[in-house]
Amino acid sequence: MTVLYKRVALIGLGLIASSMAHAMRAQGLAGEIVGHAKSAETRDIALEIGLCDRVCTTAAEAVQGADLVVLAVPVGAMAEIAGEIGPRIAKGATVTDVGSVKRAVIAAVAPLLPAHVTFIPGHPMAGTEYSGPRSGFATLFQNRWWLLTPLPGTDPARLERLRGLLTAIGARVDTMDADHHDLVLAVVSHTPHLIAYTMVGVADHLAQVSNSEVIQYSATGFRDFTRIAASDPTMWRDVFLTNKDAVLDVLGRFTEELFVLQRAIRMGDGDLLHAYFTRTRAIRRGIIEAGQDTSAPDFGRVASTKSTGS
Amino acid sequence: MTVLYKRVALIGLGLIASSMAHAMRAQGLAGEIVGHAKSAETRDIALEIGLCDRVCTTAAEAVQGADLVVLAVPVGAMAEIAGEIGPRIAKGATVTDVGSVKRAVIAAVAPLLPAHVTFIPGHPMAGTEYSGPRSGFATLFQNRWWLLTPLPGTDPARLERLRGLLTAIGARVDTMDADHHDLVLAVVSHTPHLIAYTMVGVADHLAQVSNSEVIQYSATGFRDFTRIAASDPTMWRDVFLTNKDAVLDVLGRFTEELFVLQRAIRMGDGDLLHAYFTRTRAIRRGIIEAGQDTSAPDFGRVASTKSTGS
Repeated sequence: MTVLYKRVALIGLGLIASSMAHAMRAQGLAGEIVGHAKSAETRDIALEIGLCDRVCTTAAEAVQGADLVVLAVPVGAMAEIAGEIGPRIAKGATVTDVGSVKRAVIAAVAPLLPAHVTFIPGHPMAGTEYSGPRSGFATLFQNRWWLLTPLPGTDPARLERLRGLLTAIGARVDTMDADHHDLVLAVVSHTPHLIAYTMVGVADHLAQVSNSEVIQYSATGFRDFTRIAASDPTMWRDVFLTNKDAVLDVLGRFTEELFVLQRAIRMGDGDLLHAYFTRTRAIRRGIIEAGQDTSAPDFGRVASTKSTGS
Repeated sequence: MTVLYKRVALIGLGLIASSMAHAMRAQGLAGEIVGHAKSAETRDIALEIGLCDRVCTTAAEAVQGADLVVLAVPVGAMAEIAGEIGPRIAKGATVTDVGSVKRAVIAAVAPLLPAHVTFIPGHPMAGTEYSGPRSGFATLFQNRWWLLTPLPGTDPARLERLRGLLTAIGARVDTMDADHHDLVLAVVSHTPHLIAYTMVGVADHLAQVSNSEVIQYSATGFRDFTRIAASDPTMWRDVFLTNKDAVLDVLGRFTEELFVLQRAIRMGDGDLLHAYFTRTRAIRRGIIEAGQDTSAPDFGRVASTKSTGS
């Protein structure tokens, strides 16, 4: 129970910020947790469930006297928030963010913060398909990566203090260059999400197959896609608009590769398909061995107890 | 505990057949369960774990005297098996299969079975990413759909008896035309699998991002794809080769749709993206309401207890 920051200001009170609040409180890491959300409804819920010690109507008010400010708003809203809080941030404070893209956030936020503030961009690689102040839970970050993309010349002591907080709430922290981060994320997260959205859209538009059939018969494949396609639309719109270059690059490669497999199907090239499908198994084994997923069949989903019918 | 079939012959002893064996035994639905697998290793394992009452070296031997024969081999192997067992099947027996495509299986199998046998093609829409005789478990079919595509003129009494067995092991049974089945499956299962294989292949080939990075940072999206891309390569090769028309149709629609979203990203059309992503959320809700997936965040995955590190 070491207090690492005297006052933490959470700007935005969605899944990530509310999980941070629960986790920091469970570990006694923050002297005081102050929150702000743009929506009055969100602020009311935060008050009702006691998410923060104080909930402020404006971001500028929330950051006053904070030694750590966490920007946990959609990527597209970062610049406006930075402009609003820049003049009010305490001298020597650390500012971090939790945006899923880093180059665009740095370009939007860094110029608007005063020189006496240390901005350490960050990205917790954890999430569920839920959002909002009620969706958070203290163990969200357990064994998940939290990438930091510090700017050149960042004070090592401040970087270590932030790393200490994130490690204490369960995350595994790594640092990398912002551009590399954005490419890695385009591969492991952004493009998979776009593809999942697309597949769900195709099913929705196909007239010969009803939506109720799609829903009923989703157990062998499709439902895995719908989970990630149920994520927050605003967050994802901003991700694609702000990580455009890397996403378009990876999408181009994806289409090429898909056409190779599509042609093999058309030509009846079973050997190519079998070799391709065999290779992908090895990557799955690597993910399980790295502790990034469960090896339980079907993700360990518990079978529904709903009664059977015909 | 009503014995519905005096002797059930399981041809092929993978995930589906071994789960059927466990489930039928748990409910006392079969007088005797006889099994056959092509691989001696699989037969040895089946004997070792007591999966069946008897394990036969040939399929022809296994089906003798059986009143229900279940063809649970890859779709590409169905014709050879049907040719082998056709002359040996008892008069009046019911034959069903568990292949993921139906039109091609009917074309391959039906002509090789004698007229006194009732062939009722079937497809259990349940599975995990595991395969082999040890992968089965009695509750695999609980609340999952099992589609039957009976041929015109099928004896209703025999259809009802098979339906009774499948319902007793937990499945929800529905019947439909084979062609419609193949299109529905192309949408909800086959195309999603191909796309997942492709995405995993793209990540594997991308030189700037190492496989260890892909594996480490897979938690926000990518790992969901790898689960289905770890499925049995032989089964999936056969699915794509035998459901070619429907898969190519759906893939064409998928590519069109993907290009619409890709163009929106390139042009910065945030409104289109937001509207698209909002619509897909509704389908996810439908799946949860239909009891075909868990609403627990992140599929109810249990966080790994592996120690944290940097």
